[in-house]
Amino acid sequence: MASMLLSRQLTCCLQQNSRLLVFGHRYISQAAAKIDVDFDYDGPLMKTEVPGPRSRELMKKLNGIQNAEAVHFFCNYEESRGNYLVDVDGNRMLDLYSQISSIPIGYSHPSLIKLLQQPQNLSTFINRPALGILPPENFTEKLEESLLSVAPKGLSQVMTMSCGSCSNENAFKAIFMWYRNKERGHNNVTKEELESCMINQPPGCPDYAMLSFMGGFHGRTLGCLATTHSKAIHKLDIPSLDWPIAPFPRLKYPLEDFVKENQQEEARCLEEVEDLIVKYRKKKKIVAGIIVEPIQSEGGDNHASDDFFRKLRDIARKHGCAFLVDEVQTGCGSTGKFWAHEHWGLDDPADVVTFSKKMMTGGFFHKEEFRPNAPYRIFNTWLGDPSKNLMLAEVIKVIKTEDLLNNATHAGKALLTGLLDLQARYPHLISRVRGRGTFCSFDTPNDATRNKLITIARNKGVVLGGCGDRSIRFRPTLVFKDHHAHLFLNIFSDILANFK
Amino acid sequence: MASMLLSRQLTCCLQQNSRLLVFGHRYISQAAAKIDVDFDYDGPLMKTEVPGPRSRELMKKLNGIQNAEAVHFFCNYEESRGNYLVDVDGNRMLDLYSQISSIPIGYSHPSLIKLLQQPQNLSTFINRPALGILPPENFTEKLEESLLSVAPKGLSQVMTMSCGSCSNENAFKAIFMWYRNKERGHNNVTKEELESCMINQPPGCPDYAMLSFMGGFHGRTLGCLATTHSKAIHKLDIPSLDWPIAPFPRLKYPLEDFVKENQQEEARCLEEVEDLIVKYRKKKKIVAGIIVEPIQSEGGDNHASDDFFRKLRDIARKHGCAFLVDEVQTGCGSTGKFWAHEHWGLDDPADVVTFSKKMMTGGFFHKEEFRPNAPYRIFNTWLGDPSKNLMLAEVIKVIKTEDLLNNATHAGKALLTGLLDLQARYPHLISRVRGRGTFCSFDTPNDATRNKLITIARNKGVVLGGCGDRSIRFRPTLVFKDHHAHLFLNIFSDILANFK
Repeated sequence: MASMLLSRQLTCCLQQNSRLLVFGHRYISQAAAKIDVDFDYDGPLMKTEVPGPRSRELMKKLNGIQNAEAVHFFCNYEESRGNYLVDVDGNRMLDLYSQISSIPIGYSHPSLIKLLQQPQNLSTFINRPALGILPPENFTEKLEESLLSVAPKGLSQVMTMSCGSCSNENAFKAIFMWYRNKERGHNNVTKEELESCMINQPPGCPDYAMLSFMGGFHGRTLGCLATTHSKAIHKLDIPSLDWPIAPFPRLKYPLEDFVKENQQEEARCLEEVEDLIVKYRKKKKIVAGIIVEPIQSEGGDNHASDDFFRKLRDIARKHGCAFLVDEVQTGCGSTGKFWAHEHWGLDDPADVVTFSKKMMTGGFFHKEEFRPNAPYRIFNTWLGDPSKNLMLAEVIKVIKTEDLLNNATHAGKALLTGLLDLQARYPHLISRVRGRGTFCSFDTPNDATRNKLITIARNKGVVLGGCGDRSIRFRPTLVFKDHHAHLFLNIFSDILANFK
Repeated sequence: MASMLLSRQLTCCLQQNSRLLVFGHRYISQAAAKIDVDFDYDGPLMKTEVPGPRSRELMKKLNGIQNAEAVHFFCNYEESRGNYLVDVDGNRMLDLYSQISSIPIGYSHPSLIKLLQQPQNLSTFINRPALGILPPENFTEKLEESLLSVAPKGLSQVMTMSCGSCSNENAFKAIFMWYRNKERGHNNVTKEELESCMINQPPGCPDYAMLSFMGGFHGRTLGCLATTHSKAIHKLDIPSLDWPIAPFPRLKYPLEDFVKENQQEEARCLEEVEDLIVKYRKKKKIVAGIIVEPIQSEGGDNHASDDFFRKLRDIARKHGCAFLVDEVQTGCGSTGKFWAHEHWGLDDPADVVTFSKKMMTGGFFHKEEFRPNAPYRIFNTWLGDPSKNLMLAEVIKVIKTEDLLNNATHAGKALLTGLLDLQARYPHLISRVRGRGTFCSFDTPNDATRNKLITIARNKGVVLGGCGDRSIRFRPTLVFKDHHAHLFLNIFSDILANFK
């Protein structure tokens, strides 16, 4: 059956490429009635230690032209399929990290292969326009099929950008412009503003700030970096801005045993947010906006309650600050809702929501009042890439037709239940199991144990990612199913049983 | 002959798509012996005013979801070829602006079409990796074929990024790290540094600065924007950093008539650079680097002499500052050398060179001493895009095999000679004609005249771009030939003769 589906999916061009067809045994699960699930392998297959000899050889070569010490191994993306990443030494691994959470529907998805093979799409990949001045005919249509079809409630406007950092940087700018227009109360800009902004001085460049949270990560360009506080390695030696930083709740687990303590902790953090806004305002530094992740990801998968975020939204409104939700890592379905912040049930929507990674293009949604009042204010040469919008439209179609949000909830439950079970059996190795959808994580006793577990898992055929000081995070693609969860849990259970 | 070449170039898949083949008369110039030149039209063909009715309809629709006031018109990229941009109303225009200088070898180049059609390349477009941790097998090889094969002398290291702003932002960071390591004199970071950087404070976040020039443009994210001083619209309402800004020479034309005045002007600016470095150092703000464009592009195509830049490089060295050359717009051949700064004949190479636009990927070259001393210091999820590296390798192959650098010198000479002639005939409309290769420009009396000329030209079938307050800049692709220059000059001559 699988080969029948395959022949239906692939055109003549692809069939000529035998490398793409010879990829070993594929898994046919009970869910195989859905076409694309078949485009997967049936399990890990390890041939060497990872990184293997070929990877090590390539790492050495790359290290001649850039610092390559962060490279885990080199990949054979042609052979990678669905949830499985294949490396250059022929090792096939179940990938629960998916390129730092940036692969939406698995590797080499047949729908995307098909998209690339359609001659009418060629032009989109080779003629990249300056979208802000000369968009292609189908630009709005593709935005409607992709981004606007999943726009968070109340956010009718969207801008595309090339990456997550640019998305947050430009969201900050839209917020600063909005705030300044509010302050002005009219559209007339003074000569003094126009002149002073050219030399980086107020009033043209006002002393505005974004309030961020300790442990948050919002990117690495200078503006973003002033709101990023997850690891010193991101920030060391880079000049920054004196912007306010609030504490993020540190919840105790299991949540049901620490209801009161956690409420108090969240109240303390919210109080600090208000205090900081007032304190900074007193020293003439205006907090124009608050930026927050629904789950602090790089910083260690730190969660807070829906109630915390609803109250934070209220504080932003009360003080006239914009409320920016950074969904670069949490967005695109893995929490079981398309946007993680949909879980909160906000009455008044977020003002701005940024995205990137699995969305394939960066960008941000915003309320109409955050629309720049003139052209070229939020602008750059490319403003994203229509070839990414084209692929995103296809990805969103797959998410809908294959019901992948419900799948994330379902597979996430299988994963979380299994992790809780492992936590009960190995409390000295696993603690603070937490998650929403497949966006799960747990803590290990320390950095060294965490890294050792990741290395062992990799050599057993499972790619995991770390975050924070000692957490392991799960960031599978949206085609991660219950049976992948069970496969992982079996492997990991053995690892824990034998861990010394 | 053209159709014979065509059939050799296009595969079965493309032939099925009749839209791609029916595109009117194509020009066969004397240079037609070179294959790719045939993939062009024989001249503009105008059917409606621009923007036409279909463009206006689409602009209205797009304006519902984002500020679309900067849109010139909507394009039919499938029908666009070589130097000709076709819009959605069927107008075919000679494009001398090429998507804000970002199309290297013309629209729908057959080599790129072929690249996209090769099944073995499919995976690169649909499986975008996190390059810093899991690069594809051919990553180094493609970098060698593309970026490293054109690396500026002395710069052995390269990092890729997704856009021009991210390239400059990360170049700044590499410079700040390098400077701090120099100051430390060793690799040991103190506990105080590690802690203070997490809250944006020195010593972890030192009070370092980049020195930039008035009139320069280096991008629009917060760090870049602090070095951008071309137009108020880029900067208004955005908080900034107190970084030093030096005057950029304002040369008088024709250069041969103002040799002494221009030398004095350049000396004055250089003196100011040194004064600013000293002055800022006194107030404990350290100038870690100097950033400059070889030709200030957005700011109005402001040139300075090769001697100016050589002396600026010397000043940077003398004061221990890094010398960053921003080649985002000037790079990739249009000045007749691959990098515009190669014209200067520097003894000691630039320290860092940034690129994007026509290079298809962003990024920066740097000397080995600017290499980060640890992994993850210059890092983000995507770190560019291998599909762009793949296309760039092909583009660079075309530039070499078709001798497009010499072509830029040659076609540029035809263009500049013609512009000087028009300047002599219409001095009330055209002044300060200047340029290097096809990277040419002239001034008009004022903003209104400039914009009117651009609009008239567009309706006569020529796309031009403005820069600065009242300049018109030429940014054709690298397949712009002498005959395109003559075609433009004929059309523009008529426009000037009839201009009221």
